[in-house]
Amino acid sequence: MRQPPASLDPLFKPRSVALIGASDDVARIGGRPLRYLREGGFKGAVYPVNPKRDTVQGIGSYSSVAALPEVPDVAILAVPAQGTVQALRDCADRGVNAAVVFSAGFAEASEQGRLAQDEIAGIARQSGMRVLGPNCLGLFNAGIGYYGTFSAILDAAFVEPGPVAVVSQSGAYGSHIAHLARQRGLGIGQWITTGNECDIDVAEALRWVIDQADVKVVMAYAEGIRDRDTFVEALEVARAREKAIVFLKVGRSDVGAQAVSSHTAALAGSDAVFDAVLRQYGAYRARTTAEHLDVAYACARGLYPAGNRFGIFTLSGGFGIQMADDASACGLDAAPMPEAAQEELKAMLPYASPRNPVDATAQALTDLPLMTSYIAAMLEKGGYHLFAGIFGSGPASPTFSAKLRQTLRTATAGHEGRVLALSMSAPAEIVRAYENDGFLVFEDGSALVNALAALVWFRRSFDAAKATRPAAPAAMRIAPPHGALSEHEAKSLLRAAAGIAFPKEALVRPDEDAGAAAAAIGFPVVVKICSPDIAHKTEIGGVIVGVRNEAEARDAARTILARARDQRPDARIDGVIASPMIKGGVETIAGVVRDPTFGPVVMFGLGGVFVEVLKDVTFRAAPFDVAEAQRMIHEIRGFALLEGVRGAPPTDIDALAEMLSRLSQFAADNAELIESIDLNPVLAMPRGEGVMPLDALLVPCRSGS
Amino acid sequence: MRQPPASLDPLFKPRSVALIGASDDVARIGGRPLRYLREGGFKGAVYPVNPKRDTVQGIGSYSSVAALPEVPDVAILAVPAQGTVQALRDCADRGVNAAVVFSAGFAEASEQGRLAQDEIAGIARQSGMRVLGPNCLGLFNAGIGYYGTFSAILDAAFVEPGPVAVVSQSGAYGSHIAHLARQRGLGIGQWITTGNECDIDVAEALRWVIDQADVKVVMAYAEGIRDRDTFVEALEVARAREKAIVFLKVGRSDVGAQAVSSHTAALAGSDAVFDAVLRQYGAYRARTTAEHLDVAYACARGLYPAGNRFGIFTLSGGFGIQMADDASACGLDAAPMPEAAQEELKAMLPYASPRNPVDATAQALTDLPLMTSYIAAMLEKGGYHLFAGIFGSGPASPTFSAKLRQTLRTATAGHEGRVLALSMSAPAEIVRAYENDGFLVFEDGSALVNALAALVWFRRSFDAAKATRPAAPAAMRIAPPHGALSEHEAKSLLRAAAGIAFPKEALVRPDEDAGAAAAAIGFPVVVKICSPDIAHKTEIGGVIVGVRNEAEARDAARTILARARDQRPDARIDGVIASPMIKGGVETIAGVVRDPTFGPVVMFGLGGVFVEVLKDVTFRAAPFDVAEAQRMIHEIRGFALLEGVRGAPPTDIDALAEMLSRLSQFAADNAELIESIDLNPVLAMPRGEGVMPLDALLVPCRSGS
Repeated sequence: MRQPPASLDPLFKPRSVALIGASDDVARIGGRPLRYLREGGFKGAVYPVNPKRDTVQGIGSYSSVAALPEVPDVAILAVPAQGTVQALRDCADRGVNAAVVFSAGFAEASEQGRLAQDEIAGIARQSGMRVLGPNCLGLFNAGIGYYGTFSAILDAAFVEPGPVAVVSQSGAYGSHIAHLARQRGLGIGQWITTGNECDIDVAEALRWVIDQADVKVVMAYAEGIRDRDTFVEALEVARAREKAIVFLKVGRSDVGAQAVSSHTAALAGSDAVFDAVLRQYGAYRARTTAEHLDVAYACARGLYPAGNRFGIFTLSGGFGIQMADDASACGLDAAPMPEAAQEELKAMLPYASPRNPVDATAQALTDLPLMTSYIAAMLEKGGYHLFAGIFGSGPASPTFSAKLRQTLRTATAGHEGRVLALSMSAPAEIVRAYENDGFLVFEDGSALVNALAALVWFRRSFDAAKATRPAAPAAMRIAPPHGALSEHEAKSLLRAAAGIAFPKEALVRPDEDAGAAAAAIGFPVVVKICSPDIAHKTEIGGVIVGVRNEAEARDAARTILARARDQRPDARIDGVIASPMIKGGVETIAGVVRDPTFGPVVMFGLGGVFVEVLKDVTFRAAPFDVAEAQRMIHEIRGFALLEGVRGAPPTDIDALAEMLSRLSQFAADNAELIESIDLNPVLAMPRGEGVMPLDALLVPCRSGS
Repeated sequence: MRQPPASLDPLFKPRSVALIGASDDVARIGGRPLRYLREGGFKGAVYPVNPKRDTVQGIGSYSSVAALPEVPDVAILAVPAQGTVQALRDCADRGVNAAVVFSAGFAEASEQGRLAQDEIAGIARQSGMRVLGPNCLGLFNAGIGYYGTFSAILDAAFVEPGPVAVVSQSGAYGSHIAHLARQRGLGIGQWITTGNECDIDVAEALRWVIDQADVKVVMAYAEGIRDRDTFVEALEVARAREKAIVFLKVGRSDVGAQAVSSHTAALAGSDAVFDAVLRQYGAYRARTTAEHLDVAYACARGLYPAGNRFGIFTLSGGFGIQMADDASACGLDAAPMPEAAQEELKAMLPYASPRNPVDATAQALTDLPLMTSYIAAMLEKGGYHLFAGIFGSGPASPTFSAKLRQTLRTATAGHEGRVLALSMSAPAEIVRAYENDGFLVFEDGSALVNALAALVWFRRSFDAAKATRPAAPAAMRIAPPHGALSEHEAKSLLRAAAGIAFPKEALVRPDEDAGAAAAAIGFPVVVKICSPDIAHKTEIGGVIVGVRNEAEARDAARTILARARDQRPDARIDGVIASPMIKGGVETIAGVVRDPTFGPVVMFGLGGVFVEVLKDVTFRAAPFDVAEAQRMIHEIRGFALLEGVRGAPPTDIDALAEMLSRLSQFAADNAELIESIDLNPVLAMPRGEGVMPLDALLVPCRSGS
């Protein structure tokens, strides 16, 4: 089923294009693409198809696809929904490699539309012709002047080619972001909108654009993902090649998710899982359109800092403080200048603040050599990986701006490998000049800091992926479980197949002596009912803790078995479990759930009030290694509790990571058999003493029962 | 000492202005203001003072202030630091009412500068002349064309008068925000920068601008506040008059706070306290410059929604979902349209999504009457207090834009009382046209939602201040404590003077019978050392819990007294306390600390891991009433714990609020006597059962000891 990425080449890089439904009116859906293809510099053949006309927009037109003098690489269909299926059949019959379907009125509109869309998908599948859409705005490849879109934003001006690719499910969002990028002077090489995704989805488009040499950053937009494997592969390839994917995924809120389902047919998995998967595979999630653009803009140079030391140059204390606040919030390190360098700067201007932010005061505006010395000292002696200068509206003055540019060029010469950024407000042509000098320019200082922090994030993510990773712990394929499992069975299975170490425990059959079994475990013990049919043991009074001797153990077993028989007469009763009372440690929870998009996903969190009140949990798609598990554990807000607070010892985080990774491998290897796993609680014991999962619940898939 | 607000009238609304150090060069500090006064339309008299010239910029000049034909209302000093003190003396001698000192080189620069600044402050104090600065950019009052500033941003164009006032400690920030406001088409009536604040500070400037009829919103910037009472008064008056104060306060982070102290002389109190005080008195804290501007822009119409129901109109599902996500994050209620109205909209366009976001699809772009019907239905039937339409770059098209404007005007006619906003990207002149039609216009949809949520926040804050508030619980002035207090003394004092109900307890002197006393309390009890010199009782083993009978109580008392004598031989020992063991409830903490800026401040938080790991605490300046205490309690992240989780009963939040309010009244009434109070833990018992403060530590001020 899965086609190789190169199967999209005819779509993105056609040598010839047929436009079915070509129109003379350049404002119409069938007229715009033709105008764009004519005026955009496309070198290939363009064939208008319109049975009613001899020429369209001055170009010779053809009555049908069959009548074309050659087989076009791509056919763009600007025909109404009801004519689409037949037009696509004609294309397939002629052997066209790829088609773009603009028309709406399919799965998003009605049941009838859904059926028609299924027909389109069928044609694609049977013929091998790749189909983009329906209900999409098409695509463009600016480098070859190929504009296969009717997006109105090109009416005013074309988008210049550049290092950015746009991959968007939504045509409106894709258009808007292209408009904003153009305003920002940011070139877009490849741009594609996938619409209803009957064949080509965001994941596959992403996979293709990542392979293009000129693409340095991708701005992606989706409401959900269809093809998990291609998606993860695209993210992994991008990360390996140090190409940044900046993702805007909507449907964070309940209202938003509801609107997603009423809007498109995309399966919206849990937003928290999607969020975690992006992080896990190194894609950056933007929260707003402004951030989407700012971060992509910063990434477009492909320059990622080797560390997070951040030097701030300012002419006004207030601006410097504000940026230092932002830096702190974003995890950038506004480390002070070395003492000796501070002394030197102080000697030049006694009332300057040379620490960091380095405040040369308004004096530097009139004494530009002073500014040069200060900035050069920061780059030479401060060891900053990132530098920002705050200039407000100063550069807007045409007379002053030229002098300031020269000053900044001189001061930063030889440091082109650093990330150099300016916060300033000026007309576009002045901003372009500073950008050409090598500076990233942001109007808002907070946006600057956030985007620079994103560069640091990408650098760390690229490096983490390259690091020699420990081999994933082994796991075993299990036989399909025959129905529900008891706690004891679940633990045995996870111990054997996943290598998870549970504390020793004894299963005591109803006719066996609970006293002796408990004694062998060692008092005090906890006694629990063991039944595949009783998942919530406390509800029937099926747990007795603090059992101190053999007599109490026998009593407890008797009591529990009686309660179970009484309250769940139909339940299969395996007996009771006697297990040691474990003291100390920090209560955590771990589990596996099946995400509709990403399949088995591991959840981790702190137990008790943290999960109950604060929902302080985190996710990762299975499988993942121990390093990823470490990152996962460090993400929770209450992480400090695992490091020890109030004099408590630090816990065995390594063992916790090992357990989560093993669990993930097991979940991935047996994905089709397992609906969910709960290990709750898992006590994280003091460092060196491991983890103690005290309970296990494994729910097999219905198909596996 | 405190001067009435009207004492700033001559500064802000002068009838005549002297410019000391006037210069012919309009790019110089002494030339710019003269040019601005000449060209800005100022109707009053302008007197250049320059002993070396007969005319300056073509105006007759005077050799000295003494030589002026009348006493000017205000003197603007554009003279170097070393000439400032003498020039100010001359002004004071002449009886000038107000002066502006531009020059830097005072307290911010050196010890010598600090002494000179003290001299300036002395002149102001003695003469009653109000002094702005030094080290400031001055001020302007655009309505009367009075530009007493050398800010370079006016070189290009004046700032139009309007409903915004700017009050900024930082001249650079004040200039930048004025530049951005001008770009946004936002008029600024009053603009003032306070610099080193030797006399007039941000608080007093704020107090003055709030009194001006044309001011609807204030953009304030400060690194810290000097005059707490004037500041709080300004915030309260603004709130009572429904004028929005949007505050950017820097120094959130450690690095930032460090830079504050190296930058100006402002006392930077705890940022968390400042944050809480802004919230308490109804000022909105902006986190970024962009947000500062966006929120002020939204407030500038003085239109605050009666509720938070938010209708979203979109032509593209994706944009709608994104905005719904933002709305949810900001607390706006994207409530669905009534079912019947949805049916009607669906009947007009079957594949629309009429719920909310209301998605009329791209169809509405070509069918504008459909758009009219949809939007009109939202306003008429949706009950939305706020409305946003998402239009991307569509309005940038000059031909389409006029039709769209007409459509929106028709659709919204008669709903001018609603907050109507558009997310769109277009050239400034097009944006202005939509604004004139009554719409707030934002380029970024997330910024739009955030600003609209701020309007809702202001409305609630205005209303809360107007609500009939319960009388503050009474508190008593206490006699200055003679040194440190024991736990028992602290509790007695707080019980008597603040009305805080502690569980009954017995103080057992060393020679009394602990057994009988404990029995009177009722077993089990906890026995604790009672000494004014032992604040941390557990450190010496001074607490024994779970004491079950008289013999155990006597043993416990003996043991504790022996430990205390052994480990703290110098401590005064009052005896031991026997108090009941309280079960149940949720552990909280309450306390009082002295903030260097705001004086006594009450702290509240959840106990245990919440405060240890998550620092989940909140503050309020004392005193405050029960309603404010309720808001305070609701602010903590772990609030759900107080409402009951995992089947636990809801706690007595009313009693908690009552206690916090009482504590605040006590702290305010005895502010100069109390360094800190700790009530830790305070058990919040089930609803109706009150709160149980189990321990009290009261540290008197050193001066009170």
